[in-house]
Amino acid sequence: MREFTVKFHPQGKSIRVTQGTDILSAATRAGIVVSAPCGGEGVCGKCRVIVDKGSVKTESSRLVDDADRKRGVVLACQTLVESDVEVTFTKESLEAHEHLCHEAEDFTKGVILKRENKFPLSPLISKVYLELTAPTADDGTSDLDRIMDALKGRVGALRLSTRLTNIKHLSEVLRESDFKITVVLAYREGAQEILSLEPGDTTGSNLAFAFDIGTTTVAGQLIDLKTGTILGTRIAFNAQAVYGADIITRMIYASEPGGMAKLNSGVVGNINEMIDDLIKANKVNLGDIYAIVAAGNMTMIHLILKIDPSGLRKAPYVSTVSAFPPVSAAELAIEINPRGIAAFLPGVSTYVGGDIVSGILACGVAENDDLTLLVDIGTNGEIVLGNREWMIGSAASAGPAFEGSGLTCGMKAVSGAMQRIIIDANLDVKFETISHVAPKGICGSGYIDLLSQMLKRGVMGKDGKINRDTASGRIRRVDNNYEFVLAFASETAIDRDIIIRDDDIDNLKRSKGAIYSAIISIINKVGKDITDVKKIYIAGGFGNYLNIENSIFIGLLPDVERSIYEFVGNSSLAGARMSLLSRDAFNATEGIHKNITYMDLAAEPGYMDEYIAALFFPHTEIGRFPSVRL
Amino acid sequence: MREFTVKFHPQGKSIRVTQGTDILSAATRAGIVVSAPCGGEGVCGKCRVIVDKGSVKTESSRLVDDADRKRGVVLACQTLVESDVEVTFTKESLEAHEHLCHEAEDFTKGVILKRENKFPLSPLISKVYLELTAPTADDGTSDLDRIMDALKGRVGALRLSTRLTNIKHLSEVLRESDFKITVVLAYREGAQEILSLEPGDTTGSNLAFAFDIGTTTVAGQLIDLKTGTILGTRIAFNAQAVYGADIITRMIYASEPGGMAKLNSGVVGNINEMIDDLIKANKVNLGDIYAIVAAGNMTMIHLILKIDPSGLRKAPYVSTVSAFPPVSAAELAIEINPRGIAAFLPGVSTYVGGDIVSGILACGVAENDDLTLLVDIGTNGEIVLGNREWMIGSAASAGPAFEGSGLTCGMKAVSGAMQRIIIDANLDVKFETISHVAPKGICGSGYIDLLSQMLKRGVMGKDGKINRDTASGRIRRVDNNYEFVLAFASETAIDRDIIIRDDDIDNLKRSKGAIYSAIISIINKVGKDITDVKKIYIAGGFGNYLNIENSIFIGLLPDVERSIYEFVGNSSLAGARMSLLSRDAFNATEGIHKNITYMDLAAEPGYMDEYIAALFFPHTEIGRFPSVRL
Repeated sequence: MREFTVKFHPQGKSIRVTQGTDILSAATRAGIVVSAPCGGEGVCGKCRVIVDKGSVKTESSRLVDDADRKRGVVLACQTLVESDVEVTFTKESLEAHEHLCHEAEDFTKGVILKRENKFPLSPLISKVYLELTAPTADDGTSDLDRIMDALKGRVGALRLSTRLTNIKHLSEVLRESDFKITVVLAYREGAQEILSLEPGDTTGSNLAFAFDIGTTTVAGQLIDLKTGTILGTRIAFNAQAVYGADIITRMIYASEPGGMAKLNSGVVGNINEMIDDLIKANKVNLGDIYAIVAAGNMTMIHLILKIDPSGLRKAPYVSTVSAFPPVSAAELAIEINPRGIAAFLPGVSTYVGGDIVSGILACGVAENDDLTLLVDIGTNGEIVLGNREWMIGSAASAGPAFEGSGLTCGMKAVSGAMQRIIIDANLDVKFETISHVAPKGICGSGYIDLLSQMLKRGVMGKDGKINRDTASGRIRRVDNNYEFVLAFASETAIDRDIIIRDDDIDNLKRSKGAIYSAIISIINKVGKDITDVKKIYIAGGFGNYLNIENSIFIGLLPDVERSIYEFVGNSSLAGARMSLLSRDAFNATEGIHKNITYMDLAAEPGYMDEYIAALFFPHTEIGRFPSVRL
Repeated sequence: MREFTVKFHPQGKSIRVTQGTDILSAATRAGIVVSAPCGGEGVCGKCRVIVDKGSVKTESSRLVDDADRKRGVVLACQTLVESDVEVTFTKESLEAHEHLCHEAEDFTKGVILKRENKFPLSPLISKVYLELTAPTADDGTSDLDRIMDALKGRVGALRLSTRLTNIKHLSEVLRESDFKITVVLAYREGAQEILSLEPGDTTGSNLAFAFDIGTTTVAGQLIDLKTGTILGTRIAFNAQAVYGADIITRMIYASEPGGMAKLNSGVVGNINEMIDDLIKANKVNLGDIYAIVAAGNMTMIHLILKIDPSGLRKAPYVSTVSAFPPVSAAELAIEINPRGIAAFLPGVSTYVGGDIVSGILACGVAENDDLTLLVDIGTNGEIVLGNREWMIGSAASAGPAFEGSGLTCGMKAVSGAMQRIIIDANLDVKFETISHVAPKGICGSGYIDLLSQMLKRGVMGKDGKINRDTASGRIRRVDNNYEFVLAFASETAIDRDIIIRDDDIDNLKRSKGAIYSAIISIINKVGKDITDVKKIYIAGGFGNYLNIENSIFIGLLPDVERSIYEFVGNSSLAGARMSLLSRDAFNATEGIHKNITYMDLAAEPGYMDEYIAALFFPHTEIGRFPSVRL
């Protein structure tokens, strides 16, 4: 097999590959992080490069329009190396990989912050400053006993860490600091463990990270444990996406040689990148970070811990671990203080993970007397129904469309994303972007508005097809697809039109259908009716905006009294943050995970019929959506 | 500087060294373990080699007699390389390094075994066999929760290990063993931690090691945790001895570059060698060993844990840690099951370590109403006086003479050591060796008998000098030294005469004087008299024999009613074993170490006078030994 050199611009990196290697794989091997949420299937259209020199074999893609094709734009994943080549990432691709980790607005809605106050501030990491008396000939208490004695009464039950490193240099630390030290303690199972001893009084700074680890999206927050303040939030596409869009493909990849290592370093890389970015932005020291608490689906947590997830993939779908012991962050290559810990919220099963337990905690589902519904719209749409007596949880394969992945102009809910969209009677488009900058794409809440408006204005039919007969310069045909233009290239920050196509709508329709039909199936399963539900929490990575009215209009959510709905943003991240800030909250997750029964939708006889009936806007049975007038 | 090659026989190893390097250092660097308890000072006479070829510069030594000198025997530590040389270790030296780790008889005396029964058998490591039901579609409990649920009720409070490795392959282990597994649990601070999961029923084997780690001597036992049976005992000279005979030299060496690493690997090597030897002798699997419990002096434990011991050496002599957290054996490079733990009994101060706490536990000092004395005769003679109300501990620099080190024919209490010696009226010598084989040398209890008999028969005067006027073929002059022959070369297993010299007696006299004066000083310190003491336990590495009458006769022990004395052997090892076999015993050491006050003999005004007065057989003030008639 012949070998060729691929040179990447503007990075200036090169790599030798064998003939026929695709450029996406070559870039990945060269250490360039490329956003390719479809996993190199050629369907997301994100990995765009221009071939400057050399010979390639490429598949033409409908995702590359004529203008781009003329500029030499190809999809890296669909382009094979046939000689020495030089390629340049497009401006759009550059945005993707230069800003893999984005600053995000606070996801947190009022409901959750109010609940956070219910739990007293008692963070998992605490610091105690001690001014000890130096030993004398008459007081030969050992250094460690001296510290333990001083801590008594000031903290609860104490346990010595099994990590030897924590006491190895104790003697020097004490003497260099003139016996004035700060003890860093981690709470665990009713006792506190000494993590570290710092010279002098360092109680002024006590920071930690909360994470939500999703299949498509990873979100992280830097938290001040002294006040509960959120110092910053970051959001990124999960770097594992290059190995597969959904958890099934990832689990299969994990069982291939070297697969686990790659998946693990992908998501750990996400975590470390966010930590690094937030540390720098807030000008704080890495050494001051002693904990992360993460909520995530079962597969993600297994992969972070490098535990074989294959049990999750095969009947009867049992995870190796559901309540994870806290482990050393260093053991996981998570770059905080090397003596720090990483804790993971417990999950229930393959499809109801710690992210949902975290959401239940954040919304207080397990404390309600009334029947409550929690719908978390992510790559899997997870649904929990219940109250303080019982809970049933399930998941629908929604796909990552509402996370902005797999769509022509989809993006995360970060700066530049269209999050509110209105189409007026003249079919002119008005939109608001996150951070009020020129638009770069459309996020989940933008798509919900967009579909609702297209349906209302007749731009799209109930079947989800763009109306070919509408007279508007915004509607055009490209190959066999129709597309609707929201913003022309000159109005955007990406020098390309921001559009939605028939294919995108089809994708979104399947997502909304999967979620709606799952909600109905789970309610039916327990012999209840949607009218029995007294409170509905909607969670997901929608930034700080989601239009419930429009969600109902397109048939994503049931048509019930609007006042029982509450949009809570990223409830998984909120629950992780609450667990970090309060031991009571952390301990409560243990009870929650044990009280949830898992329901397998695929095994429900009526589910497939419900799903098929939901593949219409708003629904095949229009009687279910009495308030929707078309 | 010129370089030369030194070749060692019979090992066949070679090494390049610079001119002037001593042969002991060269051998050590070549990876040959040489017994040199004096640390290369030229005073123990153990490192004997014959120079076969080449040129050396050597110091003549009184420890090499004429016959040996003619054979070309030199002390390796006193011999410098001046050309390429070849050397052969003598038969005696070979014995020393081929059998660094010796099989030893059971040290345990009745008193301790009787006490061991007071503590219920509840070993630190326990195993529970579980036959679990496999998960089904209706029972999706995670693998780990399934195990935790099954353990509930069968064991007390449970804690998950923070070591991730223990659950990493849980899923495979469960399935490969058809859900029949054995859970290995370690007790710690009131809860049990899951160490490991083994396929099938492995409860048939549950083994562990107890260790006594002394400055001069290391002793280890393989214990069956199911029954408390001792499966074998090993004893060796501490391999650190080559870096210094006492703990002060070792602490200084630890602060030199690379010193800590060498001291650490020396003693860890001792431990691993004993484990390996006992594992093989008992045909058991290393994987079945999940714990070691070690009692040792503070310096030794600091060095095993690689904690800087410098605080122990400088006023006010405070240790970094006195109650050591159990750590992973693997972290210490101790070769048992890699998931196993290593626990260390707590100590009090530089000179009253975990070995003494262990002895107090073994003898029950802290449970007695009456005033009790514990005397542990080792490199430091440690003394504890007290009862259930209070305890005071101190240490005398006894030196390693009673451990058989630093004496012409001294050896450990192992096979071939003369342990009982009688000199009859004709000055003929009758002796009994351990294991009843031809003699190789004299151990501590042999020396006590020997001194007592020499004193009684007038072979030695009260000043400790061999009587030059005695007419006997056993007494002879060599250089300026007189010596007494116990066994002629033909009677021995080492082809050399077994003797005692004036120098040896002087050494023993200082040891016995240090111990006796420490006993008296500590009793005086608390305003008591020796007659107030109702029970005296004598501990030390004397094998299973120590003649109390003879010990009093030479002035090592106070002249009181014999019935209050009890010889308990290696009480440090016994306490470690008890702590391994009973959680109550293990927990009791925590209370003991906190209840001991340390007394610094060096700071006692009367101590030096006491010591000087004790440098006589039995004592300068003969009135103190009314029962001794000379």
